[in-house]
Amino acid sequence: MDSAELVDRLLAGERRALARLLTRVEDGGPDRLREVVALLHPHTGTAQLIGITGSPGVGKSTLTSALVAEWRRRERRVAVLAVDPSSPFSGGALLGDRIRMQDHVLDEGVFIRSMASRGHLGGLSWATPQALLVLDAAGFDVVVVETVGVGQAEVEVASTADTTVVTLAPGMGDAIQAAKAGILEIADVFCVNKADRDGADRTVRELRDMQQLGHGQWRAPIHKTVAARDEGISELADAIDGHRAWLAEQGHLAQRRLERARVQVREIALGEVRDRFARLGSGGLVDELAAAVAARRTDPYTAADRLLASLEG
Amino acid sequence: MDSAELVDRLLAGERRALARLLTRVEDGGPDRLREVVALLHPHTGTAQLIGITGSPGVGKSTLTSALVAEWRRRERRVAVLAVDPSSPFSGGALLGDRIRMQDHVLDEGVFIRSMASRGHLGGLSWATPQALLVLDAAGFDVVVVETVGVGQAEVEVASTADTTVVTLAPGMGDAIQAAKAGILEIADVFCVNKADRDGADRTVRELRDMQQLGHGQWRAPIHKTVAARDEGISELADAIDGHRAWLAEQGHLAQRRLERARVQVREIALGEVRDRFARLGSGGLVDELAAAVAARRTDPYTAADRLLASLEG
Repeated sequence: MDSAELVDRLLAGERRALARLLTRVEDGGPDRLREVVALLHPHTGTAQLIGITGSPGVGKSTLTSALVAEWRRRERRVAVLAVDPSSPFSGGALLGDRIRMQDHVLDEGVFIRSMASRGHLGGLSWATPQALLVLDAAGFDVVVVETVGVGQAEVEVASTADTTVVTLAPGMGDAIQAAKAGILEIADVFCVNKADRDGADRTVRELRDMQQLGHGQWRAPIHKTVAARDEGISELADAIDGHRAWLAEQGHLAQRRLERARVQVREIALGEVRDRFARLGSGGLVDELAAAVAARRTDPYTAADRLLASLEG
Repeated sequence: MDSAELVDRLLAGERRALARLLTRVEDGGPDRLREVVALLHPHTGTAQLIGITGSPGVGKSTLTSALVAEWRRRERRVAVLAVDPSSPFSGGALLGDRIRMQDHVLDEGVFIRSMASRGHLGGLSWATPQALLVLDAAGFDVVVVETVGVGQAEVEVASTADTTVVTLAPGMGDAIQAAKAGILEIADVFCVNKADRDGADRTVRELRDMQQLGHGQWRAPIHKTVAARDEGISELADAIDGHRAWLAEQGHLAQRRLERARVQVREIALGEVRDRFARLGSGGLVDELAAAVAARRTDPYTAADRLLASLEG
């Protein structure tokens, strides 16, 4: 089936078209991706994009699942894109804790997809922003990106989402560690999950202290949850909506979306340059230059100049 | 002082020249960086480069400090570059646990430097490979890069180092979480630190099980340490040297260094493209394209094409 027909079916609400388009975006190669994006793009821009992030082990999947149930109670259709930082070497993904999401498999108003992060070392998959377009065009009210790990991926979520929820748990991956990993500043809402454990209040306090360092007009609210028991989830959902309402009131929503477009255009362009370097291929100019650098016959900057010149020539 | 004179003094073993060159590489802007690299590059290629990585909280700094002491007992000169994932927003770095490194401040055979990871979201600083050149040219026998966090930075360490030590601790950031974060495959040597805690043997077992999935000829040895009490450190140092000896015997050392040069050349070239996009600047073409994408007047691929065309034109 050609992409145009798939997109028509997606817009008509056909679930199978959704799954097939996502596969096409993820696996179809750059030309397919470009074609699908051009078709979808005019139909996007309405979904509320939410990033849920935090260190491994804080219970993000359980939290996401509980939030999905809450949003369903509020009659909102929800899509979740779970980005698994699969090995850059094996391309595989461990999907173990996706199992909790099975609570929602029979609900037509919920769509959940795990996506490998291959092709973009350690960060979000290069296909992620494009997969978000598919879910947005499919008419979901809420689209969640859940990322595992800390660092690069989280910063990218922040530049993609309307609202980023940074999740911590008492005792592990505490506030100081989160600060080190640079993920505090990207939080629009904090969630201290597993709040029935010792040290939850201490984590909240540490977060509050660090917020004194501040980052602009919005002070991220801090919410305690026990996602496995559905505690605090309704309040967290309210806080997420509260942040979005604030963005809209202040005119920041348009600004965030402009920034998202800027990052997307620049990353696609850089990806294209990266592809061109890759196509120069093994045995080609890159290898020749690398050999010259390794043998100290030339320095890396001079080699990089030659690589760039080959691109332009 | 001009860079050529600083490099002469560095090669003569002057400690102050070392610190000043590192600052120049880190803060001096792209032209300075290029100049320094061109001068240093012919004098590099002798140091043993070691990456030490793992999740926040596993005790990497303590481990690094213990290894430094061990290498000093073996009469090797050691430099440590600790890459702090400072916030991409604030540019600040939290240096708290660098304090342990103060054990070594009076030792002329040890040099320790913390480096922010600004400018390269969440990953290694763009200046890191260049800072390694400074330390290599300064004649250190061992140069360690310690990274905090998981993900992008770790993969980059693996492509830079001769030997990458992946550090875990029982109970937190366990083997399954590490697998999810994609850092198992980059390990040449595993270190289960804080091995006096409950669950250390379980972590070792999980690692061993996952190794069944394999990645080539080298099976990374798994070492238990209690770095704070100096336990297992000598064996870990032996394992690191063992890996390097294996690389050399198999002819893989040259191959790793070729790969390192390839990544370095490509990343410098991509950084240059990124800089050119940035110089197109606010109010310029990138903003115009982003606005058109955000308003759905054009799609991101078409916009990226125009951005690339402007680069070449």
